[in-house]
Amino acid sequence: MNIEMIEAAAGRLSGHLRRTPLLTSPFLDEIAGRRVFLKPECLQHTGSFKARGAWSAISAMDPEVRKAGVMAYSSGNHAQGVAWAAAQHGAPAVILMPADAPELKRENTKALGARVVLYDRETESREEKGKALAEELGLTLVRPYDEPLVIAGQGTVGLEIAEQAAEAGVNTADVLVCCGGGGLTSGIALALEAKAPGLRARPVEPAGFDDATRSLSGGVVVRNDRMGGSICDAIVTPEPGELTFPIMKRLCGPGLVVTDDESLYAMAQAFLRLKLVAEPGGAVALAAALLRRDEIEGDAVIAVVSGGNVDPMMFSRSLITHAGPA
Amino acid sequence: MNIEMIEAAAGRLSGHLRRTPLLTSPFLDEIAGRRVFLKPECLQHTGSFKARGAWSAISAMDPEVRKAGVMAYSSGNHAQGVAWAAAQHGAPAVILMPADAPELKRENTKALGARVVLYDRETESREEKGKALAEELGLTLVRPYDEPLVIAGQGTVGLEIAEQAAEAGVNTADVLVCCGGGGLTSGIALALEAKAPGLRARPVEPAGFDDATRSLSGGVVVRNDRMGGSICDAIVTPEPGELTFPIMKRLCGPGLVVTDDESLYAMAQAFLRLKLVAEPGGAVALAAALLRRDEIEGDAVIAVVSGGNVDPMMFSRSLITHAGPA
Repeated sequence: MNIEMIEAAAGRLSGHLRRTPLLTSPFLDEIAGRRVFLKPECLQHTGSFKARGAWSAISAMDPEVRKAGVMAYSSGNHAQGVAWAAAQHGAPAVILMPADAPELKRENTKALGARVVLYDRETESREEKGKALAEELGLTLVRPYDEPLVIAGQGTVGLEIAEQAAEAGVNTADVLVCCGGGGLTSGIALALEAKAPGLRARPVEPAGFDDATRSLSGGVVVRNDRMGGSICDAIVTPEPGELTFPIMKRLCGPGLVVTDDESLYAMAQAFLRLKLVAEPGGAVALAAALLRRDEIEGDAVIAVVSGGNVDPMMFSRSLITHAGPA
Repeated sequence: MNIEMIEAAAGRLSGHLRRTPLLTSPFLDEIAGRRVFLKPECLQHTGSFKARGAWSAISAMDPEVRKAGVMAYSSGNHAQGVAWAAAQHGAPAVILMPADAPELKRENTKALGARVVLYDRETESREEKGKALAEELGLTLVRPYDEPLVIAGQGTVGLEIAEQAAEAGVNTADVLVCCGGGGLTSGIALALEAKAPGLRARPVEPAGFDDATRSLSGGVVVRNDRMGGSICDAIVTPEPGELTFPIMKRLCGPGLVVTDDESLYAMAQAFLRLKLVAEPGGAVALAAALLRRDEIEGDAVIAVVSGGNVDPMMFSRSLITHAGPA
C-alpha cells in the first residue's frame, strides 16, 4: 500500500463520487473547547464512505472479469456501496446477507440493483455458500476492508481532508476516524502521511468493541470478546484487518473509545448544528471530538462522520434523549 | 435589480459562505418519475440560505455605519443569519423577537453573538420599538426579503444551480423554490435568467398560505387570509414583497402548493435518502418535486431545500409518520 495507489483511486473516483465538504459550527467548537471540523461522509452516495472503496475496487477490475459480476458479504453499508458501484459500472452484484437482516436493508440493496442471497446464520457457512456461488457464476469477491484497492478508495477521504484542512489553515490536528476493520482509518492515515504530515489519524470505537484501540495499545492484534450488543453495529468487527493493522500501528495515534449514549449525543449535535443525519457507528468520532477534550491534542480536531444509514426509530431515540427541551 | 448585483454579492460571499452541493438519489428519481437534483441550503451556515442574504447586506455596508450595528425583526432563520453575519464582521446585532418566541430560537440567536430584545405582540408595536432602538443606537435594519442586497445574496444560490446543473448536463428544468416573501425565489429567478435561461424558477408554498401562487396566477398581489396554523412557519408571510413580486411575475413559472403532511413526507425522504435534516418550510419544494409529477415539465427537476432548523419533536413526527416500518 502506498500513496500512489490512493491517488490512482482518486483518479478513478473523480466525477463519480462526491467530494464531501469540511463543515464547522461555533456551537460544536464551544462544546469541544477547540475548533471542530467535520467530514460528512454520510453525504456520500449510498450514505457512507463505503461507496468509495467499492468504486475503487470495481473500477480497477478487468472489464471482462467485471462483466461476470461481483459479490460481497454484508448486510450494511458495504453492501450498498458495492451494489451501487456495480450498477454504475453495468456489472451484476450478488450480496450475501443473513436471513435475519432487516428488511429495509435488504430492500435498499435490491433497489440499488443487486441480487440479495440469504443464508441461515445457524445452519449455513457464509463463506462456503459464497464460494460456491462465486464459482458457479464467476463472481469476484469485494472484501470490506482487507483489500488494497478498497483501502485506497477509503484513503481518498484522507486526500480531501489534507487539502481542505490546509485551505482552512489547519496544519496540525488529530483526525478522528470511526473504526471497524480499519479500512477507512488506515487509508486516511496513509494519505495524511504523504500529504499532511502534521495531521494524525486516530481510530474511534464503541466501548466494549475497542479491538483496534487495544491492539494499538499493546502492539499486537487482539479480538473483541463478542460481536453483538452495540448500537454501533456498522463498525463492530472481530479484530483489525491483516492489512490494515500494520498500517495503523505504524501511523496512527492512540485509539479513543465512546459509549453508545455518547454516540447518540453526537448524532443529536450533528442534527442540531449541522443538519446532518449520522448513524450511531458513524458518530463515534464526533462524540470523541466533543467529549474527550483531554485526550486530544491541539487547538483543532477533525472528525469523520462515516455514515448516515440509521433506522428512523434509533434516530428519534437520539433526538428524544439528547435534543429535547432543556 | 440585475445580474451584476448578484455577481457582486457572490464575490463578497466567496470564501465565507458554503457552496452547497447538488445532490441526487436513485430512490428519489423513482418516486418523482424523473431525475431529481437537490440543492441543500440546510447545510449552509446557520442552517439556512438566510445567511447568504444577511452576509450580502452586511458586507456591503459602509464600515463606519456597520460598526454601529445592525437590527432585524425575526424569530427564525433570518435572525440567525443576521446574527452570524454581523458577528463575522465584528458588528453588533440586535434582534427583535416576540416575547413568546421559543426559547431555543432565542438562545441560538444569542449564542451566535446577537442581543435579543423581546416585545409583547399584544401591547407593543414591533416597528415602533425597533425604530426607537435603531435611532438610539444607530442601528441599520436588515430586511428579510424586500431589500436588493438581500435578494442579491439569495440569488447566489441561483448562480450555483446554473453552474452545477450545467455540469450535470441539465439545461432545461423547473427549479422549485420554497417561497415566503420571495427573496430566494426572485434572486434565483434573476440568476437563472442570465446564466441558465432553460431553467425556470417556480415558487412552492404550503396549502392555505399560497399568496405567491395566487398572486402569480392572477397577476396582482393578494394576501393570505391568516398567518398562523402551518407547520411551515419559516415561509409563511402575509404577501409577496414589493420588490420580489414584479421579478417573480416577469420570470417565474406557476406556483405549486403542498400540504403539511406532504412536507413531512419530503422531510422523511431527505432523511432516508440523502441524510439531510430539512425543516417543514424548507421541504415544500422537495415535496412538490416528488409528488406533483403532472404539474412539472421536463425529465429533470431541481428543488431547493431552503433550511433545516426544525424542532426535534417535529422531526421525529416526520419519521414516525413517513419513515416507519412498512
